[in-house]
Amino acid sequence: MPPTSAAAPRSPLPAVVAVDWGTSSLRAWVLGPDGAPLAETRSAEGMDVVAAGGFEAVLRARLGELGAALDGLPRPLPVVLCGMVGARQGWREAGYLEVPVPLLEVADGATAVAAEGLDARILPGLALRRPERHDVMRGEETQLLGLVLHEPEASGLVCMPGTHCKWVRLASGAVSDFTTVMTGELFALLSRDSILRHTLAGAAASGEPEAAGFRSGLAEGLAEPGLLGARLFSIRAGHLLAGIEGTEAADRLSGLLIGAEVGAALAAAAPDGPIRLVASGRLARLYDAAIRAAGREVRLVDADDAVRSGLIHAARRFWPLAEGDPAR
Amino acid sequence: MPPTSAAAPRSPLPAVVAVDWGTSSLRAWVLGPDGAPLAETRSAEGMDVVAAGGFEAVLRARLGELGAALDGLPRPLPVVLCGMVGARQGWREAGYLEVPVPLLEVADGATAVAAEGLDARILPGLALRRPERHDVMRGEETQLLGLVLHEPEASGLVCMPGTHCKWVRLASGAVSDFTTVMTGELFALLSRDSILRHTLAGAAASGEPEAAGFRSGLAEGLAEPGLLGARLFSIRAGHLLAGIEGTEAADRLSGLLIGAEVGAALAAAAPDGPIRLVASGRLARLYDAAIRAAGREVRLVDADDAVRSGLIHAARRFWPLAEGDPAR
Repeated sequence: MPPTSAAAPRSPLPAVVAVDWGTSSLRAWVLGPDGAPLAETRSAEGMDVVAAGGFEAVLRARLGELGAALDGLPRPLPVVLCGMVGARQGWREAGYLEVPVPLLEVADGATAVAAEGLDARILPGLALRRPERHDVMRGEETQLLGLVLHEPEASGLVCMPGTHCKWVRLASGAVSDFTTVMTGELFALLSRDSILRHTLAGAAASGEPEAAGFRSGLAEGLAEPGLLGARLFSIRAGHLLAGIEGTEAADRLSGLLIGAEVGAALAAAAPDGPIRLVASGRLARLYDAAIRAAGREVRLVDADDAVRSGLIHAARRFWPLAEGDPAR
Repeated sequence: MPPTSAAAPRSPLPAVVAVDWGTSSLRAWVLGPDGAPLAETRSAEGMDVVAAGGFEAVLRARLGELGAALDGLPRPLPVVLCGMVGARQGWREAGYLEVPVPLLEVADGATAVAAEGLDARILPGLALRRPERHDVMRGEETQLLGLVLHEPEASGLVCMPGTHCKWVRLASGAVSDFTTVMTGELFALLSRDSILRHTLAGAAASGEPEAAGFRSGLAEGLAEPGLLGARLFSIRAGHLLAGIEGTEAADRLSGLLIGAEVGAALAAAAPDGPIRLVASGRLARLYDAAIRAAGREVRLVDADDAVRSGLIHAARRFWPLAEGDPAR
């Protein structure tokens, strides 16, 4: 039975628009002052497909789509953004904070974007500069900020799957090191453009950790990450000699790539407690299976919850968001 | 001073046309009865670009190009072929010999192709069927045949670089095991289609083993082949944070991929004598540097010489090629 209006708690009023704008997609939420999501929009308008100079128009269109939640407010809500929207090829370059970075300082590096009737701030990325290795992230730092808000002294290894997966070392709520692995992009390239395309023939992976192809690929990848290059072609040979193709072959490719990634990352990591896995949906299931198969415990952190927590925390640093505050 | 016609040794008469027809290119030679090359043609008409049913016409066009060497013969020369031309998507499927394979038996598995005025034989490929792994090769078995003709009891590891590199274990002139690594194809895919394309910006690798980018990538790849996936993105980050791009970045990609391949292959190999490297040109230089950097000796075998030796040996099994024989 729906609650009657008399019994219903008062709905929080909208306080801020939070945007996670990555390479391949954009997600925007209207959040209440406590961070509760009141409305949401998703689109495939990632940085890769937005033309230079086109970011503001795309954002305004998304705000239009969130209109029902925004109508009738005395003035426009402020907008807090993270991800590739702050890259050099994005809306406005938001710079990098240099590792080691206490995550509670992420908001301090934000870049303001002034535009007619818009008050927007883009959070910075993180950069690792070592004599032997460079690395960068944009967007994941905001998920990590959300994570440490719940666990201020979090330490240990964090796995953040995606097109460019991040493996992050936390030490007492700070990022001390991280590495990017191009697993998602390699899967897409190999499926679509390599000799393996004849074997996969357009089939997607099932996304099921129990699928036979995923399990066999995962076991081989975990056991010998260095032989990944040598195992990929076995997918083609298995087609020619044993007729293994389509979804089973795609699952095997997925298992080999994720297995090699997880195997290499954990081989280099001290066994210091569970691995925090920041993910959702299909990737959460597959990486959970992979990390457990490697003999490590998993603590799952929902990626959407984490990024919203990080964004609302940053927003509170920029604007007063309490009920009755001037932003509403 | 050019030799006078009186002093010149009699040129051998043409005896056979030998064709190495791979995925991305075709090379054909007119050979004398002793295997000496009398004329040569090369083209980019590999299996990947020849339409189904189009192989015979392409071969006739190449024979036409070799016309000067073939004109005036009493009848057409026989043609011996190896490589992807014998694949299911090639001219005629030539089957596989199952490992272990004594290389002197390769010619026994040839497939005859009858066509108007053409007497052609395609050599078979090799297949590895193990419960845990399948693999296939086409073309390299003929180079290996050429190798064992000079060293009938050859044993040890053979490195055969290319789009799909082969690492072959020989035991007394037989192939006992082999593995394909997709290094060349990965280089092409990552250069052209991945996020790294922005960093390479169309630049080719220098192909120089002494180039700084190649040396740094090679050292990292050799040291930790399992971290290849994690090192690839450092090329992008090195561009964003340190401005390393173009040829230097392409060299680094080449070094990382070759280093990880060689490092993984040698880690799994007993230290039993020099590595035979069947290659020529740029790849011979780069892999020679990589194998030596891993602390192993190299014995270079010219890939073109080897494939011609294998093809002429097989041709002698099919047709009498001695001077004055009925083929001429």
